[in-house]
Amino acid sequence: MSRPVEFAHRERARFYEELWAFLRIPSVSAKSEHDGDTARAARWVRRQLAGAGLDAEVLPTPGHPVVVGEWRGAGPDAPTVLVYGHYDVQPPEPLELWDTPPFEPRIRDGRIYARGSADDKGQLFLHIKALEAHLATRGRLPVNVVVLAEGEEEVGSPNLVPFVKEHRERLAADTVVISDSAMFAPGLPSLLFSLRGLAYFEIHASGPRSDLHSGAYGGAVPNPANALARVIGSLHDETGRIAIAGFYDDVVTPSRETLAGIRGLPFDAEAYAREVGTVPAGGESGYSALERLWTRPSCDVNGLLSGYTGEGAKTVLPAGAMAKVSFRLVPNQSPERVKILLEEHLAKVAPAGVGFSLVELHGGRPWLATPEGPLFEAASRALERSFGSRPVLTGEGGTIPIVVELEEILGANSLLLGFALPGANMHAPNEWFATECFEKGIDTLIHLYDELAAS
Amino acid sequence: MSRPVEFAHRERARFYEELWAFLRIPSVSAKSEHDGDTARAARWVRRQLAGAGLDAEVLPTPGHPVVVGEWRGAGPDAPTVLVYGHYDVQPPEPLELWDTPPFEPRIRDGRIYARGSADDKGQLFLHIKALEAHLATRGRLPVNVVVLAEGEEEVGSPNLVPFVKEHRERLAADTVVISDSAMFAPGLPSLLFSLRGLAYFEIHASGPRSDLHSGAYGGAVPNPANALARVIGSLHDETGRIAIAGFYDDVVTPSRETLAGIRGLPFDAEAYAREVGTVPAGGESGYSALERLWTRPSCDVNGLLSGYTGEGAKTVLPAGAMAKVSFRLVPNQSPERVKILLEEHLAKVAPAGVGFSLVELHGGRPWLATPEGPLFEAASRALERSFGSRPVLTGEGGTIPIVVELEEILGANSLLLGFALPGANMHAPNEWFATECFEKGIDTLIHLYDELAAS
Repeated sequence: MSRPVEFAHRERARFYEELWAFLRIPSVSAKSEHDGDTARAARWVRRQLAGAGLDAEVLPTPGHPVVVGEWRGAGPDAPTVLVYGHYDVQPPEPLELWDTPPFEPRIRDGRIYARGSADDKGQLFLHIKALEAHLATRGRLPVNVVVLAEGEEEVGSPNLVPFVKEHRERLAADTVVISDSAMFAPGLPSLLFSLRGLAYFEIHASGPRSDLHSGAYGGAVPNPANALARVIGSLHDETGRIAIAGFYDDVVTPSRETLAGIRGLPFDAEAYAREVGTVPAGGESGYSALERLWTRPSCDVNGLLSGYTGEGAKTVLPAGAMAKVSFRLVPNQSPERVKILLEEHLAKVAPAGVGFSLVELHGGRPWLATPEGPLFEAASRALERSFGSRPVLTGEGGTIPIVVELEEILGANSLLLGFALPGANMHAPNEWFATECFEKGIDTLIHLYDELAAS
Repeated sequence: MSRPVEFAHRERARFYEELWAFLRIPSVSAKSEHDGDTARAARWVRRQLAGAGLDAEVLPTPGHPVVVGEWRGAGPDAPTVLVYGHYDVQPPEPLELWDTPPFEPRIRDGRIYARGSADDKGQLFLHIKALEAHLATRGRLPVNVVVLAEGEEEVGSPNLVPFVKEHRERLAADTVVISDSAMFAPGLPSLLFSLRGLAYFEIHASGPRSDLHSGAYGGAVPNPANALARVIGSLHDETGRIAIAGFYDDVVTPSRETLAGIRGLPFDAEAYAREVGTVPAGGESGYSALERLWTRPSCDVNGLLSGYTGEGAKTVLPAGAMAKVSFRLVPNQSPERVKILLEEHLAKVAPAGVGFSLVELHGGRPWLATPEGPLFEAASRALERSFGSRPVLTGEGGTIPIVVELEEILGANSLLLGFALPGANMHAPNEWFATECFEKGIDTLIHLYDELAAS
């Protein structure tokens, strides 16, 4: 066992205590009422980075601040690793479905339950502790390191690209390392080869000037809730394929190797159905569940609101209706193109007397890695040393919008190795992170620097 | 001017004051938190009836109580008029759209603004004051009178039919008179020839066990909000016709005379569009707006709720979705049959992995009058005396479920004369009742007893 790993094991109790303090901060970036908490989380990350031995500061943006930590001791000729993570979290609602409060972390059955435990506070924290273990025991790292922690990932990172562009020199790196994803299965470490992109909209339908009596007006006045439902229904065809004209024009069919790799994974449809509570029958027919998740676009309603939703029967013809609708994108789709196509679709299907408007809330391009080279190899060896088996290559249905941007702006390659487990309830009640992954995750990231030095 | 009318005019200021007290009680029958207010409204009505000179009592039901007032002074050989009304009101939400608070009545521009001012507290109150005017000035009425005021009209009168059956002897009447509807236009008094029925449901769609991350699961797991939207979309065809198999089997096409009468009414589509704020383009094609409202069934979404509806973008694949959906029915449709047809429809269109369940919240049969005979004539003359012109015959898109039931149980005919004006915002924010209609309404009902005596 190396000295940094020994250090990490010895300091584990303190690490948990510190993580608890991090998870207790309700840094919900989507809600302005939490702006103070988000700022507090940024300051907490800065102090942690400084404590680990990095030069760290909180830098303002027009939104939530960015935290940057630097260790340049490897010298100008050594390569630089940029660690990216985010300290903001999803809203915890619906609160009543949490078994314990979202911002009061608890361990139950080997799991850390808290909002942000997996996405992404817990995983960002692993990196800080790995750096601390190296610097505390050896006083140095084999590479230069920059940590970039943002507070707006859950709202689409609206200010990060300008920030990275502005600080392009300071953030310059050869490799971007991100832990914000999941392993394929417990005990089966994974490296990502793809991320889907995202185009997230609010669709507003408006009809009469105010809510009307549905008896006195129903059948004479167009109902925006009926119209919105019909429009949402029109987004898919009978086979589950997205029915927006031109939507698949930019979709790249994955290579035969990629598809063969996916088919080789131990996917247990029954266990999956048990985990989610229903059959994996969503989306396009003709593709397996994993193929749909990793290689095909999707379209989901994330929220619906109209009219009267309380107890009992209110016979109202609502003045308006709202849907949150998001698309997951695959190479080479772009959120900008999807917005145009959706606008055209709405114009085509909107009935007389109902107005539709579209608000873009969030966008991110899909990402595809080249899963080979010294970086992938170093990460594979690091994972094997901690988990005892070679990692598998997996895709990810979710989106980390900044990956493509960081690669392009900094000219770096990305390495995405996540330590959450399937069913971790990221974005849902009862989010959790396995203590085993927490502990082996720190070990892995400690190993990663040694393997990078050796490669 | 007759003595009862003189009395009513002299006492007008007090009448307004009393109405204010009635409108201030938030007797929202749909919400159990208002049960105390609903009981208070019942006691208020009883005191008013007693004050007018009737024997009155509050009688319990398994839900909200019924108030019964009786005046039997005309003797066992005289006919009996039963006045039906309701003291409960619709929920006032959304509160932020009210210009003044819903339970703080205000007069602005000749209108009484308050929840219940038109539907139905204000109109029930007219009847009480007409009775008071007769009894205070003449000590008698030309007919026996029973007043039946319920507190569950806005939740489908679940306990009224058993109540009326139980008290069949006591409530026996030749004529049921109801003021719970609107005039066709200002200055144009109206008598109703039809009411639509109602079948009101909550549809619940359930998918995964809990909310999921829409990136990590979207496209693999079926989305109940997408499915519900699609199902709602399937309730109509391209022409606005309801697309549930068998739905029109029981629909009776109105007579040529009825349709000709509707076409003869001064309907101003542009004014209507200005009033509601959008073109009257809802519902079936091939029928005018009034034909659709009065003679054709309709299907409206009254509420939608699913997933995340707050500020910003939450990438959630929701565990469930809910829609409130109601149908307005015409002769000879029945809510029971519509429920069966809707259940069959849901079973047919539900996609794999999403469960659908149906909760019936409210039902009422449609009603069709024979618009002739001494009763209609007496009412016509009474309206002409107050408003200066003969009433027109109109239909009503809304539902008063108890009309058919009262007719059947009591063997009576119904007379529906309403004094609200179009655009009164019944069931919507800023409900109002014209002071002119309030004052002429009392006069009309005073005249009605004289005309009934004369006919």
